Amino acid sequence: MSVFVSTLQRLQPGRAVAAFIALASLAATHAFFVEMGIFRKSLDVKGKHCYITGGSSGLGHALALELVKRGAHVTIIARGQARLDAVKAELETHKGPSQIIQAISADLTSPTSSSDALEQAVKAHGGKCPEHIYLCAGHSLPQFFIDASPEELKSGLDETYWVSAYTAHAATKMMVSQRVHGKIVFVSSFVGYISFPGYSPYAPGKYALRALADTLRTELVPHNISVHIFMPASIRSEGWENEELRKPRITKQIEEGDEVLPAGDVAESLIIGIEKGYYQITNVLVTDLMRVLSKGNAPYNNIFMDMIYLIIALVGVPIWSKYVDYLVKKDAPEVRKELKERGFYADPAAASTPK
Amino acid sequence: MSVFVSTLQRLQPGRAVAAFIALASLAATHAFFVEMGIFRKSLDVKGKHCYITGGSSGLGHALALELVKRGAHVTIIARGQARLDAVKAELETHKGPSQIIQAISADLTSPTSSSDALEQAVKAHGGKCPEHIYLCAGHSLPQFFIDASPEELKSGLDETYWVSAYTAHAATKMMVSQRVHGKIVFVSSFVGYISFPGYSPYAPGKYALRALADTLRTELVPHNISVHIFMPASIRSEGWENEELRKPRITKQIEEGDEVLPAGDVAESLIIGIEKGYYQITNVLVTDLMRVLSKGNAPYNNIFMDMIYLIIALVGVPIWSKYVDYLVKKDAPEVRKELKERGFYADPAAASTPK
Repeated sequence: MSVFVSTLQRLQPGRAVAAFIALASLAATHAFFVEMGIFRKSLDVKGKHCYITGGSSGLGHALALELVKRGAHVTIIARGQARLDAVKAELETHKGPSQIIQAISADLTSPTSSSDALEQAVKAHGGKCPEHIYLCAGHSLPQFFIDASPEELKSGLDETYWVSAYTAHAATKMMVSQRVHGKIVFVSSFVGYISFPGYSPYAPGKYALRALADTLRTELVPHNISVHIFMPASIRSEGWENEELRKPRITKQIEEGDEVLPAGDVAESLIIGIEKGYYQITNVLVTDLMRVLSKGNAPYNNIFMDMIYLIIALVGVPIWSKYVDYLVKKDAPEVRKELKERGFYADPAAASTPK
Repeated sequence: MSVFVSTLQRLQPGRAVAAFIALASLAATHAFFVEMGIFRKSLDVKGKHCYITGGSSGLGHALALELVKRGAHVTIIARGQARLDAVKAELETHKGPSQIIQAISADLTSPTSSSDALEQAVKAHGGKCPEHIYLCAGHSLPQFFIDASPEELKSGLDETYWVSAYTAHAATKMMVSQRVHGKIVFVSSFVGYISFPGYSPYAPGKYALRALADTLRTELVPHNISVHIFMPASIRSEGWENEELRKPRITKQIEEGDEVLPAGDVAESLIIGIEKGYYQITNVLVTDLMRVLSKGNAPYNNIFMDMIYLIIALVGVPIWSKYVDYLVKKDAPEVRKELKERGFYADPAAASTPK
């Protein structure tokens, strides 16, 4: 890091301005070409093996369908056998004669089951590691921190972080050992950039996935494995409906008016993001605003567009944040009243009401 | 979020510029006062019970010493009994007659032990919850993702995330139930903002702590509990020395020249941050640069200074990031050579060398 500081110290103002103008012009030209699709390479998965966790529902299901249509061998992994069978049958109606479709039931929160599922999937491919890993498994059960049990918090992290990290681990080891030049695609969330009330069982795992992707993005460069992370906003699915049922009132208020997109559209955004070569992939404007304020040292997607997002975000996000604070404060007396009614307070008579 | 978008749409350019200038002048004045210490309230812990995890070494130890000197009742929690006893004896030499010093041995990666330790600590205080919780426990064992076992990855997350989250959970429930207007202070890391090769067992837990703090910062407003998170750079301690012993070569290269500060100085920075009312507390300039690029919707510390940091970071961080990429690429042939020598490659003869 000292190199970084000494570089800053060596910069001369005149040169810095000239360099900035030159870079900005280059960036604008590049942005134009990227948006025109000049640099966009179609995601070519023909004859490649795509391994999709959570492939029997929501985003994973939609993605499996699209990749089969593009000629990939597809293995989907999920827990429930019935749904796996149904989706496998559906995928098979879209496949060409040489494509191999597999469905494997496994509990991906266990490291052994995760690597066993991968071992099973490669048998039909002569032991060769899948070229693409899409980590779509996971779900969210929002609730307040004080209402969750330690088991629910642990399960929250298992179902967001470990459900992807163990498969990423087994697959990375296999890819490196076989020198497969693959692609690992994590799926985090809008709530992997920022969090708000209700998400203590969920946001930690989604931030943690971003940390893992941030690490592996550079760590796996020597092995020619590329890493992407998708940060989708809400997806209309059965998982989302379950989530809505138990969401605290304040969480719903904060999210009021947010778009909930169909899984097919979300899968399409993911594929476009990969085709554009983006590392952190988003599917709605608001997530881009959070991305440019949260990405740390991750690369820009399109530096020209990202600077525009940044200017909007620097004004807009603090306003939104104040609005969230206002909603929380407005709801506070109701929260305390409910706790009192539930008998949560140790000594309601003796204790003073919080100011 | 729709409110946010419609607010943006309603903004008129003329008014926006006027508002911006007015806000900037206010911010500059405020920044000046803050830096002068006008708004800084000394951290008053006299007669308060401070509960410090990891209190027998490094930052936790230094913090315990400072808080005892300021008149707090202090309970330190750690694993090893011998070191706990030694630090307890040291703390007692600094205490006044009415101060209660306790040392409790517990494995904080277990939810039951975490809440048992808290229950034990409050006995001497008539069952009353500690007013301040400082979550300093945790350590880092850097290694490459493909070299770690699933058990090492799991332990990495346990020792960074759960070691703090379970105590935060037990303490929050107790604080809310007793209507104690307390303070919860998480300790993350520079590597809680950004990550690079070697930190797959560590960064996920440190990002996850930031997610938990980001959630609780607003979620606990109705209960008058304030949340802070400290993001220190490397601390000179036994933990750091153990870390250095197993750090991959590339991780050391990236960190070359970084300052490693004594625990006492780091504890002082934490206390100053709390006194200034900052939510995300840093102790070196480089972390501030990463903070403004990573904080999402978290509040600014000092908006005027933060805008200056942002301008520096927007130029400097991408340069640093390119430098890290360069180091990783330069080291890549050596990494592959070592894997080959170790027999990591499944079929070294048949497979092609990565380009």
